[in-house]
Parts: sequence; C-alpha cells; structure tokens
Amino acid sequence: MSSYEYADRLKETVKKLSDFLSLEELHHQRCRGEVLPSEKQLQELISLCRSLIFPGFYGLPDVSKENLLYHTGINTEKLFEVLVKQISAGLLFQKNTDHTDSDLKRLQESAEQKAIDFITFLPEMRRILSTDVTAMYNGDPAAQNKAEVILCYPAIRAICNYRIAHKLLELDVPLIPRIITEMAHSETGIDIHPGAVIGEYFAIDHGTGVVIGATSVIGNRVKLYQGVTLGARSFPLDENNNPIKGIARHPIIEDDVIIYSNATILGRITIGKGAVIGGNIWVTENVAPGERLVQAKAKP
Amino acid sequence: MSSYEYADRLKETVKKLSDFLSLEELHHQRCRGEVLPSEKQLQELISLCRSLIFPGFYGLPDVSKENLLYHTGINTEKLFEVLVKQISAGLLFQKNTDHTDSDLKRLQESAEQKAIDFITFLPEMRRILSTDVTAMYNGDPAAQNKAEVILCYPAIRAICNYRIAHKLLELDVPLIPRIITEMAHSETGIDIHPGAVIGEYFAIDHGTGVVIGATSVIGNRVKLYQGVTLGARSFPLDENNNPIKGIARHPIIEDDVIIYSNATILGRITIGKGAVIGGNIWVTENVAPGERLVQAKAKP
Amino acid sequence: MSSYEYADRLKETVKKLSDFLSLEELHHQRCRGEVLPSEKQLQELISLCRSLIFPGFYGLPDVSKENLLYHTGINTEKLFEVLVKQISAGLLFQKNTDHTDSDLKRLQESAEQKAIDFITFLPEMRRILSTDVTAMYNGDPAAQNKAEVILCYPAIRAICNYRIAHKLLELDVPLIPRIITEMAHSETGIDIHPGAVIGEYFAIDHGTGVVIGATSVIGNRVKLYQGVTLGARSFPLDENNNPIKGIARHPIIEDDVIIYSNATILGRITIGKGAVIGGNIWVTENVAPGERLVQAKAKP
Amino acid sequence: MSSYEYADRLKETVKKLSDFLSLEELHHQRCRGEVLPSEKQLQELISLCRSLIFPGFYGLPDVSKENLLYHTGINTEKLFEVLVKQISAGLLFQKNTDHTDSDLKRLQESAEQKAIDFITFLPEMRRILSTDVTAMYNGDPAAQNKAEVILCYPAIRAICNYRIAHKLLELDVPLIPRIITEMAHSETGIDIHPGAVIGEYFAIDHGTGVVIGATSVIGNRVKLYQGVTLGARSFPLDENNNPIKGIARHPIIEDDVIIYSNATILGRITIGKGAVIGGNIWVTENVAPGERLVQAKAKP
Amino acid sequence: MSSYEYADRLKETVKKLSDFLSLEELHHQRCRGEVLPSEKQLQELISLCRSLIFPGFYGLPDVSKENLLYHTGINTEKLFEVLVKQISAGLLFQKNTDHTDSDLKRLQESAEQKAIDFITFLPEMRRILSTDVTAMYNGDPAAQNKAEVILCYPAIRAICNYRIAHKLLELDVPLIPRIITEMAHSETGIDIHPGAVIGEYFAIDHGTGVVIGATSVIGNRVKLYQGVTLGARSFPLDENNNPIKGIARHPIIEDDVIIYSNATILGRITIGKGAVIGGNIWVTENVAPGERLVQAKAKP
Amino acid sequence: MSSYEYADRLKETVKKLSDFLSLEELHHQRCRGEVLPSEKQLQELISLCRSLIFPGFYGLPDVSKENLLYHTGINTEKLFEVLVKQISAGLLFQKNTDHTDSDLKRLQESAEQKAIDFITFLPEMRRILSTDVTAMYNGDPAAQNKAEVILCYPAIRAICNYRIAHKLLELDVPLIPRIITEMAHSETGIDIHPGAVIGEYFAIDHGTGVVIGATSVIGNRVKLYQGVTLGARSFPLDENNNPIKGIARHPIIEDDVIIYSNATILGRITIGKGAVIGGNIWVTENVAPGERLVQAKAKP
Repeated sequence: MSSYEYADRLKETVKKLSDFLSLEELHHQRCRGEVLPSEKQLQELISLCRSLIFPGFYGLPDVSKENLLYHTGINTEKLFEVLVKQISAGLLFQKNTDHTDSDLKRLQESAEQKAIDFITFLPEMRRILSTDVTAMYNGDPAAQNKAEVILCYPAIRAICNYRIAHKLLELDVPLIPRIITEMAHSETGIDIHPGAVIGEYFAIDHGTGVVIGATSVIGNRVKLYQGVTLGARSFPLDENNNPIKGIARHPIIEDDVIIYSNATILGRITIGKGAVIGGNIWVTENVAPGERLVQAKAKP
Repeated sequence: MSSYEYADRLKETVKKLSDFLSLEELHHQRCRGEVLPSEKQLQELISLCRSLIFPGFYGLPDVSKENLLYHTGINTEKLFEVLVKQISAGLLFQKNTDHTDSDLKRLQESAEQKAIDFITFLPEMRRILSTDVTAMYNGDPAAQNKAEVILCYPAIRAICNYRIAHKLLELDVPLIPRIITEMAHSETGIDIHPGAVIGEYFAIDHGTGVVIGATSVIGNRVKLYQGVTLGARSFPLDENNNPIKGIARHPIIEDDVIIYSNATILGRITIGKGAVIGGNIWVTENVAPGERLVQAKAKP
Repeated sequence: MSSYEYADRLKETVKKLSDFLSLEELHHQRCRGEVLPSEKQLQELISLCRSLIFPGFYGLPDVSKENLLYHTGINTEKLFEVLVKQISAGLLFQKNTDHTDSDLKRLQESAEQKAIDFITFLPEMRRILSTDVTAMYNGDPAAQNKAEVILCYPAIRAICNYRIAHKLLELDVPLIPRIITEMAHSETGIDIHPGAVIGEYFAIDHGTGVVIGATSVIGNRVKLYQGVTLGARSFPLDENNNPIKGIARHPIIEDDVIIYSNATILGRITIGKGAVIGGNIWVTENVAPGERLVQAKAKP
Repeated sequence: MSSYEYADRLKETVKKLSDFLSLEELHHQRCRGEVLPSEKQLQELISLCRSLIFPGFYGLPDVSKENLLYHTGINTEKLFEVLVKQISAGLLFQKNTDHTDSDLKRLQESAEQKAIDFITFLPEMRRILSTDVTAMYNGDPAAQNKAEVILCYPAIRAICNYRIAHKLLELDVPLIPRIITEMAHSETGIDIHPGAVIGEYFAIDHGTGVVIGATSVIGNRVKLYQGVTLGARSFPLDENNNPIKGIARHPIIEDDVIIYSNATILGRITIGKGAVIGGNIWVTENVAPGERLVQAKAKP
Repeated sequence: MSSYEYADRLKETVKKLSDFLSLEELHHQRCRGEVLPSEKQLQELISLCRSLIFPGFYGLPDVSKENLLYHTGINTEKLFEVLVKQISAGLLFQKNTDHTDSDLKRLQESAEQKAIDFITFLPEMRRILSTDVTAMYNGDPAAQNKAEVILCYPAIRAICNYRIAHKLLELDVPLIPRIITEMAHSETGIDIHPGAVIGEYFAIDHGTGVVIGATSVIGNRVKLYQGVTLGARSFPLDENNNPIKGIARHPIIEDDVIIYSNATILGRITIGKGAVIGGNIWVTENVAPGERLVQAKAKP
Repeated sequence: MSSYEYADRLKETVKKLSDFLSLEELHHQRCRGEVLPSEKQLQELISLCRSLIFPGFYGLPDVSKENLLYHTGINTEKLFEVLVKQISAGLLFQKNTDHTDSDLKRLQESAEQKAIDFITFLPEMRRILSTDVTAMYNGDPAAQNKAEVILCYPAIRAICNYRIAHKLLELDVPLIPRIITEMAHSETGIDIHPGAVIGEYFAIDHGTGVVIGATSVIGNRVKLYQGVTLGARSFPLDENNNPIKGIARHPIIEDDVIIYSNATILGRITIGKGAVIGGNIWVTENVAPGERLVQAKAKP
C-alpha cells in the first residue's frame, strides 16, 4: 500500500471521527470559561487534606511544634484555593445550559461557601480518622505501631478519601466525590461509594475487592475483610426495563459487626449488632444481632 | 567491617551478576537498532485513543464543534506515529534471529499497514464502546449521567483497553496487546485477556478481581460483577507435565447473562442465553438458557 | 457570607488543626537530621533491583554482553547508596528517643552492613526468581514466552517485591519491607506480607485479591489463583480485648499444593503436600496430603 | 551555639521579615482572584507564536501540507487562551485599586479584544519577520541557508520577541511586553525595548550587548553589530533631580544605515540614510546621510 | 567499517578515558559522604531568598497581610535547610584530605552557624536592595513603576545574587559564592565578582557585558551602563611568570559616579566622587572628583 | 464584539497562516522518517562529553578510581547513541530531495562512522581542554583552584562547546556544530563560530560579548578579554549586492597575543606573535609581532 493510500485512509478516518452525530453523549461540550475537574488537581486536594490531618507523615516531613502553625496555615490556604476551583468545576459540569454572568457569579460564591464549610469540618474529620487508625492498629496483630498503619495500610487511604468525598457529597458537590473515591479504588482495590454512611472506629483488613454500595449504612466498630461486598440485590425496573435510580438498596450493618473475606451481603437487609459473617458466603436476608453465619461445609 | 571489605564484596557481587550464564532467559539481548516496547509510549497510545473516542472527556478539554476537526487531525497523526513505533517494537521483540536490512524494511512496512488498519477501525470501536457506556449507565442506579460513567468508572477504562488490545491482537501484533490489558489490570483490578471475544453492550460493575481468560467468548448484553472469574478448569498436559498451550479452555457466555460477584465459572462450558449466576459460587458444568444458579444456603 | 467571615473561619480552623493535643500519635515528630522513608526512593530501589536481576527487561534496554559489566557496576553502586539511605530512615523511624551522635554513627554503620548483606544476596535472589518465572510460564497456557511473563505478569512484580522485602526483614530492617510489599499490593492487587516464608517455583495466576498473611509458610512448587486468602482465623485477645501480636496464626502450605480462585484458608492449619483446594471455599481445618476439596454443589 | 539559640534567631528574623512596614513597594498585594503574569506562560506564548510563524522549525516537527491546517488551528486556539490570561494578568497588575465585579468583566472583555487583534496581526508579522530572515541570510557570509538563520541565530529570537512585544504594547497591554523582551535579553544578550519602532529587513549580527532604547526609531534595511547602543544622552530632571519620564530621548536611525560593533549612539539625534558608523565610537551629534564615521587612529 | 571494529574502537577509547593519569586535576575525587555543590539546589536557594525579600513578586503569588507570617516561616526554614547543605558542600569541596568523623561534625556545626548568620542578615539585605530598586526606578525614564523594576530588570537579579554571594563570602563560605554570581552572569550578562564591595543605591542600566572585578570598591549612589569594565591592568608575576593571587588590583569608584556604556576602568585607580566617565573609553589613571571624561572626537 | 465575530476572525487568520505560499523558506518540509536536530538531545550530548572529559565535576558526582571504568563505559555508549541520531538529523536536514531507502542506509552508516571518529578524538580533546583550564587558572589571580575554573568559569563551557562543534565540523556534520556553539553563546555571551581554528592553552576572561568569526585563526597561548571581536571588515559583493560566502575574512592571531576588553579586530589581518592590543580600540591593519597598541588618550 502506498503512502498516498495511507494518507487517504487517515483523512477519511479523521472525517468520520469528527462527525458530531457519532458523538452524541460521548463528548463533553465545554461551556464558556468552563474548567473541567482535573485528576491532577484532585490528587493535590487529597494530598493537602492528608498533610493537614496527619502532619509529618504526609506533606513536608519536617514538621515540629515550632513550625506546625506555618505549615497548617499555608496548606489550609492552598486547600481553599484548590477546593474552590474543583467545586466550581463540578458545579459547572453538572449544568446543561449555557451560563449567564450572574449564574457564574452565584456559582463561584456557592463554591467558596462549600469550600469553607469543608475546611471547617477538618478537625472533626481528623478525630474520626484517628479512631479508624486505632481500630486498624488494635485489630491487626501484624501492625507494629500506628505509624505503620498511617504510612502503609491501603485501608487508611481508602477511608480517608471516602470521608473527604462523603463530606463533599453532603455539601452537594457533584461529580468530584465520585472521582475521589475512584482514585482510592484504583490505588487500593477498595471501592467505597461516597454516598455510603459509615460510623467511627471502622477497619478494613487487606481490602482488595471490598465494595460498599451507595446506600449502605455502617455503624461504629465494624470490621470488614478483603473481598467483602455490600451490594444491591435486585433493582425495581422502570418502564424501559432499566433500574430506577435513587432507591435504598444496600445493607444496613449495625455496630460491632465483623464480616470475613469475600462474603457478599446483598439488598436492603440488616446485619444486627455484633453479628459475625463468615467468609465466602452470600447473604440476602436479615441476620439477627449476635448471630454467627458460616459457609456450608466443603466436601472432600 | 571496613570500607575495603565492602568494596570487595560489591565487586564480587557485580562479577556474579554480570555472569551471562546466570542470565539464560532472564535477559533480553537487543537486536541492532531495536527499540523495546515502552510502557510510557503505550500509555500515550491509550490516551490518544481515549481522546479520539471520547473527545472533551479525555485529551485537551476545549473541544468544540468548531475545532473538533483540528483536534482529531492532530491526534490521529500522533497516534499513527506511536502505533508504528510500538508495533515495530513488538514485531522485533518476537523475532529470535538477527535481522537483515530487508527484514527490517519489511517489518517497518508491516507495522505501518497494521497501524492504518487499526486507525481505520476507530469509528466502529467508538460505536461499540458507546453501547458499553449505555449498558453501564442503564444498569447502575448510582450513575447520575453518562459523563460520570465515562469519567469515573474503572470498567470503562478496562474495557476500552481491552477493545484496543483485542484489535491489535487480531492484527497479529505480538506482546503489545498483553501489556495494554495488564496496564488496565493494574489501574482497575480488572484482568481481561486480549484474546477473549466480547460482544456489545457489555457491563462490569465495580470490577475489582474480575478475570476473563484468553479463550473466553462473551455475547451481547452480558453483565459481570466484581470478582467474577471466567477461568480454565484443567489443562491437558504435555509430555513434560506442563499444560499444552493454545487450547480453548474458558467458558462461553451467551447473550443476556448476568453473573454476580465472586462467582467462578471454569472450563469450556456454556452459560446459556439469559442465565443468572449467583454470587460466590463455583460453576464447572453447562448452565441451561434462562437458568438461575444460587449458592447453597449458609447455616447459622 | 463576607470575606471577613471566611478569613475568620479559616484562621480558627488553622488554630484547631495546629493544636498539638489533637495530634497525639497522628503526627510524626522528626528527630534531628532524620530523613523519612521516601516512596519515591523506594521505587528507585525496586527499579534498580529489577534491572540487576532482569537486565535488558528493566532499566536501560541496551544491555549486551559487551556492556553488562558497566551496567551492573553502576546500578550496584546506586543501589548501595539508596539502600543505605532508606535503611537508615527505617532504623531512625523506629526509635523513640532522641539520638546522640554516637547513636547516629552506629546506626549508619549498621545500615551499611545491612545494605552489603542485601546486595550479596542478589545473585541467589535471581536464581530463585528464575524458578518463579519458569513456574509461571510452564503453568499458564496463555504465556507465549518467558519474556512475556517477565514484562507483563503482575505476579512477577509482586513476588519480586516480596522477595526483596522479605530479605530486608530478615536483616531486621523496620518499616521499609512493609512499604515495599504495599507498593506491589497497590500495583497488582496482590498482598503478600514480608514476614511470610515462601519456597521456590512459586506461581500466582492473575493475582488480584490474593492475601498471604504475616506468618504464612509456603513450600516449593505451590500455585495460587486470584482471590486466594491465607489468613488468620481468630486472635487470642489480651486484657484489653485486642489481639495479641506476634503469634503464628496463618496456614502452612506444603509443597506442590494448588489453591483455586477465591478460596479462603484460615488459621494455623496445614494443607498437606500435593493437596488441591477448589475455588470459593472456606477452609479452617487441616487438609491431608493429596486430598482434593471442592465447594458444595450449587442448587439451580 | 545551641539549637535553642538557633530557633530563637530564626524566629526573630521571621518576625522582622514579616513586618509589613519594611515591605513598602517591595511587595505586591494581589487583588481578589488576581493571577500574576507568569514567565512560564509567557514562554508558552512565545513558543506558540514561533510555531505559527515558522511551522516545522518550532513546535511539533511533523508539519506537512496535509496537516498544516490542523496544527495552525490548534495552536491558534491555544495562543488565544494564553493571550487572554496573560493580558488580563497585565491589566490587573497595573491597577492600584480593588476591583468591582463589573470592572473585572470589562477587563476580561478588553483582554479578549486585544488577543483577537494580536492574532489577526500574525500573518503580517510573519511577512515582516521573513524580511528579517532574508536580511540576516543575505548579510552574513557564514550563513549556509535560511534554515540555519531561523534555527540558530539569536538575533532572530530577539527580533521575534521584540515584534511580538511591540504589537502588544501598541494594543496598550502593560508589563507583559517588557517581560517578553527581557526574556529574549536573557537568552541572547540583545536588549530591545518594546517601545522602539523598527522597520523591515532588520539585521543584527552576533548581537550580544546590543541595546535599543525605548524611544528609538529605526528605518528599513538597517544592520547593527554586537555591542551597539542606541541610548539616551541626558535626562531633563524634575524637581527631585530624577529624570522626567516619557520624553523622546533615543536616536533616529534612517534607512540603510550600518552600525559596527560596540558603537554608542546617544540622544535624540538622527543618523542619516545610508550612513556607516564604525566600531567602538561614541556618537552624540547628527550624522549626515551617507556619511562614514570611524574611530580615531589607535597609537602603537 | 564493521560493527566489530566499532566495538573495538569504543572499547579502546573507554580505556584511554578511564586512565587516571590523564585526569590529574580534571577530576574531583569525592570524599566519603561528600555531597557536591548542586546548581539546582543553589537555584532553589536564590529563589527562596528572592521570595523572602520580595514576597508576592517571587515565590507563591498569593501573599497577603494575613498569611505573610506563614509564608515567611516556611521559606525561612527551607532556606536554612538548603543553606546548611550547600555550605557543607562548599566546605567539604575545599578540603583536600580525607575527613575524620570529628572533622565532619565540626564542619556540620560550622555550616549551621554560617547559615544562621546569613539568615539573620536578610532584613538588612532587603533594606539595601530596596535602595537599589529605588535607584533603578528613579534613574530610568522608561521604568513605569517599581514593580516593573523588580520583575523585569536583569540588574536587580544580578545585584541580588551578588549581595547574597558577597555575604556568604564574608562568612568564609568557599566556592558557593562564585557559582551564585556566575548563575546571574549567565542569566543577565552581568559579571560581578562576589569579592567586590558595593555600596547602597546602586544602579546598572541594561547591564549586558558589565564586569566588576574581585577587588573593586564601589561607593553609594553609583550608576553603571552596559559593557562597563572595572578590571585589573597588569598583574605582578611570580617566579613562574604567572600573576600573583590576592593583590588589590581593581578600581575604587567613589560615591555618585556615573560610568557610561562600554567604558573600561583598569587597575587600582580611584574615580573621584561625582566624576562622570563617558562611553567607550579606556581609563588607567586616577580621575579627580567631579571630573568628566569623554572619548576623543570620531573623525568623519 | 461578539463571540461569533471572534470565531470568524480566528478562522480567517488560521486560513491565512495555513497558506503555503506565505511560507516559502520559513517552513521546513520534513522528509519521510526524518528526525529534526533536537536542542534537548544536543544538550544531553554536551553533558555526556563534559562528564567524560571532567568526570566527577560533571555527570554523576560519585566517581572514584574503582568505578571510573563503569561510568566511562556507560557514558561512552550513550554518547554514541545520541551522536548517531543527531548527526543523522543534521545530514538529513541538509538534503533537499526526498530519500531512497539506500540513501537512508548510506546516511546512517556515515553517521555511525562520524560518531566513532568523534569519540576516538575525546582523549585528545581532554588533553587540549586541560591546557585551557591551566591557562585560565594561571592567568586569573581571582581563581582559587582549577576546580573553581572547571565548575564556574563560563569561558570553559564556551570553549568546550566550541571544541566539540569544531571537531564535528571537521567531520563534515552540518548544522549541528552551529547549534552547539549558539547554545554556549546563549549561556555565556561568548560567540565562537565552529569554523574558527584555535590553538591550545587558550583563555578568555569574563567573556561576555566576545565574538570569534568563522574564518578566524588563533595560535597557542592567546588570551582574550570580554567584548573582544574578531570580525570581518568588508565583504566582496556578488552581482546581487550580497556578500560572497566562504572567503577568508577574519583575523589571524598568532601565538602569545593578549587582546584587552572590547577591542575590535576586523578583516583578514595578522596580529603578530606576542602583540598586545589595548581595550576599546578598533584595529583593521596588521600589527607587528610584539607591538603594543593602546587607545588614543581620552580628553577630560
């Protein structure tokens, strides 16, 4: 095949790929002045939150009593700036229509308000995450000290991203929360939907393959092992045979429950306080408080 | 131990590690002028494909009706260049003998031909991927809009890489396809072998731990959940007790099948049209069309 | 809300986040001159080991018989430098008290000694890893050649990181080994604790979701599939109801065992030589040599 | 000196350096939302202009008749975006007072208007720069071809930056033009003030040390050698004994003049058409058309 | 020529280039643990100084009254760290013999002392540099405001580097000061030796080609134009016919002197208070206070 | 002006800028497979040469007697690779016609031959440069040691680039030599044409503004100060009134000559052995051996 034929085929393909009709819903038409959510910026956002919550472990390592104020001051300010940009990006992305100047102004003010509200919540977020660290340290005989938990345990990263994303979702920030939890999913194999509600002193061991669905509710002092699914069982369908959106469809896990590896809990059922679910089993009905479920005996 | 002893031990180790006899098959002897497949270049290749297929979501964000042609033109050209280099790298890597100049010329021409054939397929690949996006959006009550699916869902990244890799494999490009699917495996925890044959409107939910083996065949409108394995059961052994390569050994999944999380389907069996496989079970025999398989009841 | 209120709320939050009392155990107070373990440096460390063990596949691609000595010499030296820094960082991190100058000197000498011991072990590590590559190649009908195994298979990366981390742990290096295996965990979804003891000719297929606990013991010629857990069953508790640390609590897997996908083996039990464990089952008792365990039949 | 004393001295210095009184005029107080001119962005601006004016020499090298339109389209759009940002930055920097929202809107519109006007001028700028290239090529016996002039000659870079900066100054863009010519000054040692007015077919040989002052006027077909100064002689002083700003104080160089190396021409004098000024001399009075000035004979 | 001959010639050249005898004085033999001065680190050092002296113009742009303390605190600390490393590097580089551990400790303490002394001087350095900015602004009719001087004028960068380097030289830091002034020389074409002594309110216009020798002494309110040399005339020779090092050999320029472009002042002469030296002339004898020297008339 | 008008004006300008007629000679039409000379690659080339010639000062700092062979081996090989690519780029750039495959093969072989010849010359280049270092050290009372000369003196960088470029020019490599000397020109303000012939023990002090023309011939032990020009006086014109290319037109400077700052030597004249030329003077006639020329007395 000659160079000319190559050039022709390339040209023809460029034409096909530039056909707007083939792009319906696969293409995002940017509004005037719109900035898209940026994974790089969101990574920065996460880094800043981690360095504010666990100073010395994340961010610059030379934190001391003397300079903690300087570090916190600078990082809080940077975080405010990144938050305002990314929240605006999320708000703009969601809108379908073109924006008037006053729209844009209102949107900017809303982004600033949400950013402030988020930052104000950080001290409380640190308190909650410190209970998660303690849960992970106390529950794992292999953990040498809390520093090891904070520095190495993937579950801490996943839960930290989740708690950030969940707060942003509470503040009605669209799209961004989901990207943030998917970043942790890619890094750790732990997939927590930002919509889930999760109590304190929460532990995940190993973690790869854990799935926590959008309407899950988890109490305090719960522990999950790798591969556990808190999923939906069936979806009421709409007239087009597609699932209806927005219905509570994931389990409620009460306080002090332990769920072992690869167990699958499906549907809006309740696992009662203190129950223990064995590994590799499939649960689709309520489990009473204190009950212990294990797999049918394997046959040799 | 003194500095001199250190220097001696380092020197001795360098000598041992430089012993060619210890390197048999662990070392790649580059041919003259050979360029190795480069993960960085392949990442660029994937990015260019994504930006051509989903313009505005991937690649530069400022795509509009006015400039789509420019973007598509430039990206198609860059893609051609990267493809030719990486396909050549794959072809060279596969060869064992040294190359004559005419070998190299033929190989270069072959790489250009394959690159053109790949690019020509892109509009059709966009059409197929758009059915996958729709499947994922329709099937997940948590999805707010298709943009969220395209931007956040790991399954879309894994399937996109698979469809690229599968096409390259059809064009007899060695090594590269496998690297491309492993890149998605690392990013998403979804491991699809480029040799699998997968129909349209394909959905994977959450995805971590999914394995789709090299000779799997999957129909249209199939949906998998996290942790599903489509694997081989047993391998006929050769005279050295090693598995014989190249035998069809993975399942055939017919149209409209749903397989729930952590189910394991093993061997060249057929899951009939419309069947539903429950979570956490192990299937090694054919399942009739429309059948619903669930796990044995767990005992309290 | 006005700018002034924003500034006030930011200021107040900065103050709260800078309160040392809220930071107990969540903050690392760096000693004088201390360098923290650096993930970037550890990535470099892994890259150098890989390029020394598999020259031409990792590191600079232009390795030949003529220049192998140069490459090995340079990389060994760089590795020594990085090792000394990171081992020192680990040793310093572990200590709680402030350091005298003579402490620091002893610690530096200890780091150099450990670095030399590690490097001296590399030729043997290459020999063992070559048996792992052979195991993976022989056992997977989809593998075209050993090069594909070395370049693409995530299990090779995970096992390579594990063997490096395990050697460092044997040399009493703290913290670093765990970070190294978690880096592989994030990249491959395979979570091998550096404390596990693993024999030669070890294979993991696909690998996502595999967990191998800290006190596991694995023989030669063992093969695991994705999602397999070698975990602990129950933990003897101390007076605070927390698990006692440091007790042997994970399985012993004897030579020639195969464990299929998503099987969960829990507790200090022994899976006898040559046993085969089917997928998706939960094993908490000893399995006799040669035995074959499979899941209870699913019900239609 | 102890650590405590160090800490004290650092703390005290931090306090002194943070004293706003010591910062008068040495510190820029950013307005709300203000973005400062960025040297990195301006470098991008220059690169885009160069790649639009000399495609194939600057920017991506693979320009062909077939894809020139794509490259030009993309680069023009990127240039528009960068220009709007940097022109806004310049306009904001200049203002002293805080901005109302309607100020900011007017300013944004003004920046867009100026950016469009600048881009519309680019084809003419290419025509003028092509005469400069020809002048440099024809006038230098060492030049092998015009490609060498475009790729290697520092004077082309300096003149290109000047012509860009001069156009921006004509469009009343503050600060940015001066930064752009200083970037060329640093790169080439040629210092052309953006306010100078320079005709076509302009050549500078070697160039280091050339200075062309803010109110200089240069005709067509003029050639300067290295170290030539077109400067001011004396400055009328204001009541504080400082020079009065904004008075025409640099020379007028008419068409076809040649000025040899290290000559210094000072004051609002006129060097007549076709005059030749020898090297290393100091000229402070008018030179008649066609006249040839040389240095007084050196004495042995 | 065949590949074999190439390999032989390369091998032979490698051998020659590795011959230590050919390297006498061209090679630096690093001491144990020695870190070489790093241009990248010194660039960081300069950036930190600039951002402390001119906050908002250099460093992060978002400096305000509210956060100036945070910025100053963080940057001062970073500067201390970089200074200690680079001063140590300079001190080690200078020594010829191998170091004992106690040598190294003394050297480290010395570096810390010098770093503190340097930082303590920064507020005074800001005061002096602010007089230089004022001199440049007042003296140049083209300057629109002081911001333009700080942001664009190469002389400010050169003088800033000089004042930093001069202070380090006063503190007996070897090598580093010279590298710092050469960095400014490369960027601006202005070559000020760190040994020169320069008063306040110092201005250089345009600057390219200015040379200020190591033993020059310059008073207050002096102004130089581009290309001015303050050099040595002749060097008393030692027994090997080489210049004797360390003798005062450059001019003394008293207060309020102006020296126009390309003038060359040579030898330990004195240019008296308020004198004016015209451009392009060569001065090798004392000039009386208030005198005005100009070039011999050029002949037409 | 509305968005529509903007879009129209952009579109129209894109069309004008994409008009091939306006691009005559301002655009480089790349041949098939052609790689353009790359400034980044040439920077790498220079760095490799510097690290081979001055090991420990440039390149990796940890060079010792033990590992010099490794470093030299690796760097020589990298240099060979970069040289072949850049020499090919230069050879291709020069050609006007399209290339046949056999052309390209011959060109590749020619590039490899020239690269080998260049590398073989490096030991001799080191010897010559060591005389330049000695000249600079002996001649400058401010130099503390040779290390300072090698690390800080811009003249060493300029002369090093010149000697590399000159050798490449001798090997008939087009374009690349000129780019290499212009890189030094930009960095140091010293402009040496690669065509000049320069003897050993060559020194330039300070250097900014030095110009050494293409046909200059300089003997041994010559010293130049800043701002010295060795230029052409007049150019015999061709029928189009443009200078005839390729005529010897720059000065011959014999052994042991010293030329002080800002002196200008023009035309194919000879400055005799041991002559001394004072600063700021213009010389256009032969100067006898041993003669001392100084500027006419300035008048007060």
